[in-house]
Amino acid sequence: MTQAPSSPVRRSVRVALGERSYDILIGPGLIAAAGAEIGSRMKGRRVAVITDEHVAPIYLEPFMRSLSASGIEAVSQVLPAGEKTKSFPHLMDVCDGVLGARIERNDAVVALGGGVIGDLTGFAAGIVRRGSRFIQVPTSLLAQVDSSVGGKTGINSRHGKNLIGVFHQPDLVLADTDVLDTLSPREFRAGYAEVAKYGLIDKPEFFAWLERSWRDIFAGGDARIEAIATSCQAKADVVAADERENGLRALLNLGHTFGHALEAATEYDSHRLVHGEGVSIGMVLAHQFSARMNLASPDDARRVEAHLGEVGLPISMAQIPGVLPPVETLMDAIAQDKKVKSGKLTFILTRGIGQSFVADDVPASEVLAFLKDKHPK
Amino acid sequence: MTQAPSSPVRRSVRVALGERSYDILIGPGLIAAAGAEIGSRMKGRRVAVITDEHVAPIYLEPFMRSLSASGIEAVSQVLPAGEKTKSFPHLMDVCDGVLGARIERNDAVVALGGGVIGDLTGFAAGIVRRGSRFIQVPTSLLAQVDSSVGGKTGINSRHGKNLIGVFHQPDLVLADTDVLDTLSPREFRAGYAEVAKYGLIDKPEFFAWLERSWRDIFAGGDARIEAIATSCQAKADVVAADERENGLRALLNLGHTFGHALEAATEYDSHRLVHGEGVSIGMVLAHQFSARMNLASPDDARRVEAHLGEVGLPISMAQIPGVLPPVETLMDAIAQDKKVKSGKLTFILTRGIGQSFVADDVPASEVLAFLKDKHPK
Ligand SMILES: NC(=O)c1ccc[n+]([C@@H]2O[C@H](COP(=O)([O-])OP(=O)(O)OC[C@H]3O[C@@H](n4cnc5c(N)ncnc54)[C@H](O)[C@@H]3O)[C@@H](O)[C@H]2O)c1
Ligand SMILES: NC(=O)c1ccc[n+]([C@@H]2O[C@H](COP(=O)([O-])OP(=O)(O)OC[C@H]3O[C@@H](n4cnc5c(N)ncnc54)[C@H](O)[C@@H]3O)[C@@H](O)[C@H]2O)c1
Ligand SMILES: [Zn+2]
Ligand SMILES: [Zn+2]
Repeated sequence: MTQAPSSPVRRSVRVALGERSYDILIGPGLIAAAGAEIGSRMKGRRVAVITDEHVAPIYLEPFMRSLSASGIEAVSQVLPAGEKTKSFPHLMDVCDGVLGARIERNDAVVALGGGVIGDLTGFAAGIVRRGSRFIQVPTSLLAQVDSSVGGKTGINSRHGKNLIGVFHQPDLVLADTDVLDTLSPREFRAGYAEVAKYGLIDKPEFFAWLERSWRDIFAGGDARIEAIATSCQAKADVVAADERENGLRALLNLGHTFGHALEAATEYDSHRLVHGEGVSIGMVLAHQFSARMNLASPDDARRVEAHLGEVGLPISMAQIPGVLPPVETLMDAIAQDKKVKSGKLTFILTRGIGQSFVADDVPASEVLAFLKDKHPK
Repeated sequence: MTQAPSSPVRRSVRVALGERSYDILIGPGLIAAAGAEIGSRMKGRRVAVITDEHVAPIYLEPFMRSLSASGIEAVSQVLPAGEKTKSFPHLMDVCDGVLGARIERNDAVVALGGGVIGDLTGFAAGIVRRGSRFIQVPTSLLAQVDSSVGGKTGINSRHGKNLIGVFHQPDLVLADTDVLDTLSPREFRAGYAEVAKYGLIDKPEFFAWLERSWRDIFAGGDARIEAIATSCQAKADVVAADERENGLRALLNLGHTFGHALEAATEYDSHRLVHGEGVSIGMVLAHQFSARMNLASPDDARRVEAHLGEVGLPISMAQIPGVLPPVETLMDAIAQDKKVKSGKLTFILTRGIGQSFVADDVPASEVLAFLKDKHPK
């Protein structure tokens, strides 16, 4: 942990990937300190900043000012906000913009925004000149605790989400915890689902602390920094052990198989469901299903439900506005998400709070019966 | 060197890249043997074959038949021929096609064509599901001796050629030396310039053998196989030593700084100049410039000129049809291609046949004066 004099509570997490290791700085005031932090780590003196139309009016100007104060020349590009921006036309736009700005080997491409901007910009950085330096300045809670860490980048295809991309690690992540104050409460909660996920995977004390402290985290200050740092550390540990997602990293998908099926079922319509909300319902379902399979106590499922419900996250399919497609359609989405080996599905299940594991022999018939019980009809 | 019983002269070159090592098979009949060669190396049983409208009518059907005879299910996609195909719209097409064909982790994407199809398809394979298996079946001489080896993939941007892409190594390269019989003589010669390049870099005896044997190589048979295998081995050695093009690999750019400037000067109009022709003139210029700088004997430059001229390649700017832009415009292109450090350029120069080296302190003023001498006005 390094402590900069100007911000006593700043935390730092190192992602250990050999030559490609990098720091995640977490704390208040990092937008203002960006020029100094970037300048001290970079040889080049030019950056291209990619952001979206929601983030730009609030943070682009102070960010550019901070860069320029440190002698960094910057150009910026503002894209539409929203998931649809993760597409080929915008990827081409960003690549052209970065090349047009004459960003060279020692310069960098910067993502200033949520996971959409981070995923798209990281992908562009990964392919411009077959790999350019990349800096993440995540501004949503989800991006700070999840998407900005680990090097997965990409766009969507008409065949599915995140199907096209590269692994491209950033050189630096600056998570300014103050900027989360302007995030909508709903987006904050959605990001919080991923924070809770790290507790549920393998950190029972962290989950217990979240149950006690979530109001402080939502309010800001030290608890928020602590929650984000713990989450980043958790993801960094998994990424360091399994960069290319061959094994261990699968645990990060707790709640995501059900969640993705629900996102697909609501046609990725963010008015009905955003990713973190799908994960919230998905984590509840994973715990309920584990209880049904006699792997965990039903009390644990109830505890997860109680906590996520208390913070304001949806915890059942019935809470999703509009009509859900039939269970069979959900099962199709699940079977497509996970490879089906002769009627067996791979799921992240649990033996209790913080005791998740990869189960690769889950009978599809059991999942179907379970979903029939839970489906609101 | 392994020898398959069915094709006594088949050669094999291994590209040694640890876990990502792969074989290049070189010889006649490999289109017909593709199913067996691919089938014996792959777990999956599905491939997507990408090709172009010139190659498809001649080779797609026998290729698909060979796959199907080995129990491999294949879909195919035929793209327009030519450099313009290396663009975002076609990249998106190929990615969508591959995903639509449900190509999964153990399946593969196959490039059947010249360097254009290889570069585009390799890039698509590198980004679909963040990296899918990839097989090169190069059908032009240039692709067999150069672009299919080494894992550089990519497309063009309006800011320049090959500026967007990834390093993505193939799992197998099948170079059928028979298919070169249908290549136009001009394209064959262009590929031959890259063959000669390997001799000029560091293989003086190979260059001397080419001087004696080029007619046999053009005619086909064992000399052709030998020339391609030696070229692949040369490139494989460099790639194994410097996969990401940080040092040694620069030598492969012999003739390319001048060549790229000429390609840009002729606006990549293949009626005026194709890549290998630019490289041919570029290699002659590199030898002449080295002589002018008293690094090499003028006799060596004359020898290079004589050989490339004899096979029918252009050896001077005056041979390029149409009017060339002024020397200053060529210098701009050179300065953009190479990083200019305070008036110094990086060039591949030579001390004689097969004695090339990286010179990173070439005075721009000398290059300018040299080009003024050589420019046809
Ligand atoms: N790469 C990974 O490993 C990974 C992991 C998880 C999720 N993801 C991806 O992340 C994306 C979701 O990320 P997200 O939830 O950040 O979405 P997002 O980028 O769309 O941001 C959510 C909304 O909040 C706005 N916003 C962001 N920061 C703000 C701020 N400080 N103040 C006000 N508004 C702000 C955005 O403009 C947007 O409207 C998805 O595309 C998902 O696939 C990637
Ligand atoms: N990736 C690398 O390391 C690398 C290295 C060198 C060049 N390249 C790239 O390779 C490309 C040039 O490759 P190319 O010269 O093969 O161009 P190409 O793919 O355009 O092929 C040349 C022409 O020959 C046709 N053709 C190919 N095989 C044929 C056959 N057997 N019979 C009849 N016609 C055939 C093609 O349809 C095309 O019209 C350029 O885009 C260049 O940037 C890449
Ligand atoms: Zn998630
Ligand atoms: Zn070349």
